[in-house]
Parts: sequence; C-alpha cells; structure tokens
Amino acid sequence: MARRTDYTKESLRLHKRHKGKIEIKSKVSLGSKKELSLSYSPGVAAPCLEISRDRSKAYDYTSKGNMVAVVSDGSAVLGLGKIGPQAALPVMEGKAILFKEFGGVDAFPILVDSYDTEEIISTVVRIAPGFGGINLEDISSPRCFEIEERLDDLLDIPVFHDDQHGTAAVVLAGLINSAKVVGKELKEFKVTINGAGAAGIAIARILIECGIKDIIVLDSKGALYYCREDIQMNRVKKEIARLTNASCRLKKGQAKDPEECARCNKGGLADSVLGRDVFIGVSVGKLLTQEMVRSMAKDPIIFALANPEPEIMPDLAIAAGAAVAASGRSDYPNQINNVLCFPHIFRGALDAAATRINKQMVIAAAYALAESVKSPRADKIIPDVFEKQYRVRVAKAVYDAAV
Amino acid sequence: MARRTDYTKESLRLHKRHKGKIEIKSKVSLGSKKELSLSYSPGVAAPCLEISRDRSKAYDYTSKGNMVAVVSDGSAVLGLGKIGPQAALPVMEGKAILFKEFGGVDAFPILVDSYDTEEIISTVVRIAPGFGGINLEDISSPRCFEIEERLDDLLDIPVFHDDQHGTAAVVLAGLINSAKVVGKELKEFKVTINGAGAAGIAIARILIECGIKDIIVLDSKGALYYCREDIQMNRVKKEIARLTNASCRLKKGQAKDPEECARCNKGGLADSVLGRDVFIGVSVGKLLTQEMVRSMAKDPIIFALANPEPEIMPDLAIAAGAAVAASGRSDYPNQINNVLCFPHIFRGALDAAATRINKQMVIAAAYALAESVKSPRADKIIPDVFEKQYRVRVAKAVYDAAV
Repeated sequence: MARRTDYTKESLRLHKRHKGKIEIKSKVSLGSKKELSLSYSPGVAAPCLEISRDRSKAYDYTSKGNMVAVVSDGSAVLGLGKIGPQAALPVMEGKAILFKEFGGVDAFPILVDSYDTEEIISTVVRIAPGFGGINLEDISSPRCFEIEERLDDLLDIPVFHDDQHGTAAVVLAGLINSAKVVGKELKEFKVTINGAGAAGIAIARILIECGIKDIIVLDSKGALYYCREDIQMNRVKKEIARLTNASCRLKKGQAKDPEECARCNKGGLADSVLGRDVFIGVSVGKLLTQEMVRSMAKDPIIFALANPEPEIMPDLAIAAGAAVAASGRSDYPNQINNVLCFPHIFRGALDAAATRINKQMVIAAAYALAESVKSPRADKIIPDVFEKQYRVRVAKAVYDAAV
Repeated sequence: MARRTDYTKESLRLHKRHKGKIEIKSKVSLGSKKELSLSYSPGVAAPCLEISRDRSKAYDYTSKGNMVAVVSDGSAVLGLGKIGPQAALPVMEGKAILFKEFGGVDAFPILVDSYDTEEIISTVVRIAPGFGGINLEDISSPRCFEIEERLDDLLDIPVFHDDQHGTAAVVLAGLINSAKVVGKELKEFKVTINGAGAAGIAIARILIECGIKDIIVLDSKGALYYCREDIQMNRVKKEIARLTNASCRLKKGQAKDPEECARCNKGGLADSVLGRDVFIGVSVGKLLTQEMVRSMAKDPIIFALANPEPEIMPDLAIAAGAAVAASGRSDYPNQINNVLCFPHIFRGALDAAATRINKQMVIAAAYALAESVKSPRADKIIPDVFEKQYRVRVAKAVYDAAV
C-alpha cells in the first residue's frame, strides 16, 4: 500500500506539472509567408483536390495513415470501473503516448460522452475520416463485443479492442513459451480462465483458434456452461460456453444428454483448477490460493493478471509449485503487458494499409513476440517492454500476415 | 496562374514528404519502468479518481484545457466548395498547426462524415469531453449558424466558428484603423458588404454591434432587403435584412409603408456601392470595377477579401481612388488574415477557462489587434502575421473580456 500511495502523489504532480501528457506538433515549418502559403492557403488546395479525386490519397498527403483514435466511454477503466469519459482521459492520453513511444504510431484520445452502444458506434463512424485506425479501450463487456464487431464491418480502417486482442496476443505469446519451459504441447494444455469480460473471452477465443481444446472459462458466479441460465449470462458468454467446458453442443429445445452433461464443469474456481495445466486470471486480486495451485496438474502455469493486485502473488504461486508465474506487475518477472503488442500490431497494420486486423494477424503477433525470447526460461517467457528487438519483429509479422 | 501552379507542385511535395502536417507528441518521458508506472498503470489511477470526483480537475491533470477540436464536414472548404471530409483534412491539419505555431494552442482535426445538421451537432457533443474548445471550420451557410448556436448552448466549452467571428474580428480591426487613416468616425461609415455567407453575415453583425448604422449586405442576387422573397433568402439573411438596408421593421402581415420602402436599396452591386464609404467583399473575384470604386464616397475603403482572387486587385482599387485597400493576399499590404485572431482568441478564452466566446470578447480582440499598429497608415492598417507583439495583446484583451 505504501508503494501505491507514493505513485499517487508523484503521478498527480507529474500530470499537473505538464497539464496532461499529449500535445500536437507540426511536422512542417511555418516561419515564412512562403511556408504559410504551402502548408495553408493557397497551396493546401492542391492536396485537397487530389484527395477529392481519389480518397486513398489521404494516406499520401495527410496524417491519417499514421493516426489512431483511442476511443473510450470510460465505462470500464483499469480497475476503477465506470468513471466516465472525462475521468478516463488520463488513461487514454497514457495509451496515446505508449502508441507513439513504442510503435511510432500517432494516437489521439476520443472520449465519447455516451454509454449507448448505437451512439458510440455512430459517433466513431462519423469521425472516422481523419483516422487510419480505431483502438477501442476500456469499454465494458458485453457492449464492447458488439461495438467492435459492428465498427469492424462498417469501417474500412482497422478496428481493434486492445482489452480483448492485445491481452490475448500477449497471453498467447507467454503460453507458447511456457509450453517450451515445461515441455508440454500448447494444444494439449488444459486451461482455466477466470474472468469472462473482454479479456477472458478474447483469450478463450484465441486459444480455441490455436487448437487448444480443453478450456474452462469462469465468471464471478462460477464456470460458464451452455445450460447455465442466470442474469450474468449473456450472448457472448453463451457462445464461449458452447465452445468450451466439454463443448456442449446442445441447442435450444433439445433434450439433454445426461452423459454429455456429466462431463460439464458446473463448479466454482476450486473445482475448475483441479488437475489443470494453466490458470489465467483476468478477474480480481487474491482469488487463487496456494492450495488451489497445489491441486493443479504437474508443473502448473499461473498467469495472475488482475491489476494492481494479482489473483495470487507470483512468489506465492512459485512457492506452491508453479513452474511458471506471470502477472501484470512490473516488480516481478514475466510482466504480461499489453504494450508488448498493441503499438506494433497497429504499426504493422498501418504500414500494410490493412483494412482490418484479423485473427491471423493477432496470432502472428503472438508467435513473433514469443520467438523474440531466444531461450525461454521460467522467469523469462516474454520480452521486457524496454527491449527493442521484439518491436520490429511483431510489426513485421503483422505486416506479413496482412499482405 | 504561374504562381498558383508553382504552389501546387511544391505543396504536394511538402505534404507527401511528411505524410501530412501533424503528429502527437508526449509531454512526459517514458524511458523507465517508473516513468511508465507514473504516466500509465498504476499511477494514472490517481488523476482519474480526482477527475471522477470533480470534473473540472480535467483542466489540471489532462491536456483538455489546451486542446481545441477543429471540426469540419468539408462542405465549404476554402474556395473549393463541398469536397467532403477526407479532402478537407489538409486544410484542417493546416489550421491545427496555425493554432499551435501562433497561439500555443493544441488543436486536432475532427472530420465529420455527415452533412446533416443534427448529426454534426450530436457528434460534436459526444466527443466534447476531451476538448477545451471547439473551432468550427468550413461548414456551409446557413447550416453553420444553427450548428454554432446550438453547440454554444449545449456545451460548457467555447464554440467558435472562425469563418464567421475570426474574419469579422480582423475586418473590424482593419476598419477601426482605416477610420483613423481617412479621418472619419467608425460609426458614421456607410458600409456595403458583398457576400451573405458565414463571413458576410458575421461582419454585418459585429459592425451593427459596434454601432455602425448604415449597412447594406448583398448576396449574388443583389441587396438583401426585408421584403425580398426568393429561394436564396433564408432565416439568417432575413434577420440581417431587418437590421440593415434602411432597417425595415415590417412584420409579416403588416401593410408596407411606401415611404419606408422607398429608402430600401433593392439593386445590385453598382447601385449598392454608390456614395458608400466602405466596400467589404467576401464573395468571388473580379466583381468590383474601378468605375464602381470611383462612384463611392470620398476616400473609399476597399476590403476585397475573396481568395485567391480578390473582388478587385488592391493596386487597381488604389488607382481608382481608394484611400485604403486590403485583401486576403500576402503579396500586397494589409493582408486580412484570420490567423491574426483565432489562435489568440482561443489562447485568451482557454487561459480564462471561459465557457463561451461572446461578442464582447471578439470585439475586444479586434480593438486590441487594431491598437497593435502604433501609427496606422494607408498601407499598414493591421499587423503582419509574423509580428509578435499583437499576439499577446489580443489574447490578453480576450482574457480580460472573459473574466
């Protein structure tokens, strides 16, 4: 807690001193009448006319091609929840400068003053002409899924929800290398994901895409299974329940097959980690006990990603027999940090002038990130964010997957 | 034409070399884990929480207070007309860098993919949380009036339509000093304004506000008068017609007073400049002849502001007896350039945390700009844009008028 208090004061000071974290900078000089005439009236008419004849020329003559909107409604900000668009601004400015610092991508915060799915969608569609990509951020589940899917269909520029796909890519990279460390096959992993929000669902989807067959996803009520009916179930959880937890394929109105039903896990967290290879927590702090870790399969892999307090502290997980422990914390090894991927995924997508960021591009990013670690060890399954070599590698992999 | 062609090639090269004109820059360093922790997770939670408790803290902890959205739908861009939002992007990026270079104001282009008044208004309202001000730009008349008025009512940040008020302020400044040059009283000026779009209407309004009583406004059909009924008349022109051109106060259904009606000018441009002190052109090139200038009052003042070709070239106006000639051109004296005002009006308004930019602030800007010229002469009625002293002066005057 002392650490957290220190950050509070120092962070407030930093933010106040600079009055925020971003500014707009000119890429051209405006020091003479001639320079004014070239960048503004009358010279600016020339690029305008070129673009009015062929819209794609906006990528040549404007900043559009390198400009990403960081869009949020402030409904699910960090661990703070629904604090609203104004209060989310410091996070979105932070995201914008991470884009620039790590990926050379210009990014600008767009805070939408509405929690309504349709209003958010129509707003983003209407301001899209000036942007080369859309990064959705901290929008609560399950609205985030529909907003992303619909925008992806409506727009001809990449739309990416980092809380989903960025997290999923870094987790996948970590799992790829964890498999090497423990000498198991990635596809054979029995995985338990605690948390069925944006991150949990996206992680489940990418692992399914990569061929992992035995996955259980839990929300705060317990395991998701296809027959579960309560107020916390929603369309997206239902879909994922169908594909996980013994892959029940029961359709509405169909009679239940008792044998099939018996295979399905309907328990809580303790039941759901029993004998499993991998625990991935994207929920809240201090949920996973050392006893639960001991109940898992041999050489269990623990990704406790709740922030700022993990589901189990990495050192406690290791003490309970975990072969690999990762968290979101920078003060322990194996920090699962989205900045390892999102700036470089956009870098690759923008350079390829991709109109979408599809599954293949995200998976390519994860493999490239994993391969950036030459000799994975228990305490080094992914690069440190300040290493440089992984950046171009991830961007290149995404670029190649796009073209 | 040779000059224009040269700018075309050189401007295209410039825009292509840099891929547009703006970039996002971080105001803080991100070179260590600690710096990451302060600017992003977990430290960023502190300013978020402060703002969630008190929204006004966004002005302390984020870039909002110095960030202006340059909003356009691309419906009336420079002399190019309705070229659409993508093609308007080079102009809006240009505007953004003028804001920064001349006023130290961060500005970001928001191109709205809709020509619908309601959609433009709702879009701007929804993205307003991240901005400290809204600068409307190149939105066609008469929609621009409603959009500005409604946004001004709906938002608690300054909303400014530069094509209206920026132009009006610089024109007023020029007239204040022109009056000194020719030894006439500003309020006694007989003014003819050719052009009834955003600029013409706003100039008429500010001159009325300053006590000038004899004004005639024309559109391409001729003088605006209250009884005029044709497809080109609209609500805004009707309102201005009531306040100008003999100030007909006839109401709907009222019988016309023949004597009153006889005072009203119903003619074209030639009739409307006869015996007048001031011609202000915000229309198209080559409309005002030397003969018309000769028909004006003694020591006529000619502001021929059409771009790139003025209503009459300044040297021709002077040759025909004009005492003062101004234009939008940088290759003649007395360039009426909006950059003389808009960055500094916003600088003053933002520094004062003003919630509006009202008439008094715009008029204060005009007087401060005029007073920045120590000894006005026929060829020096306003500062050159690259002079420095006027900038702080205008910002200070706006600040003082706001608080």
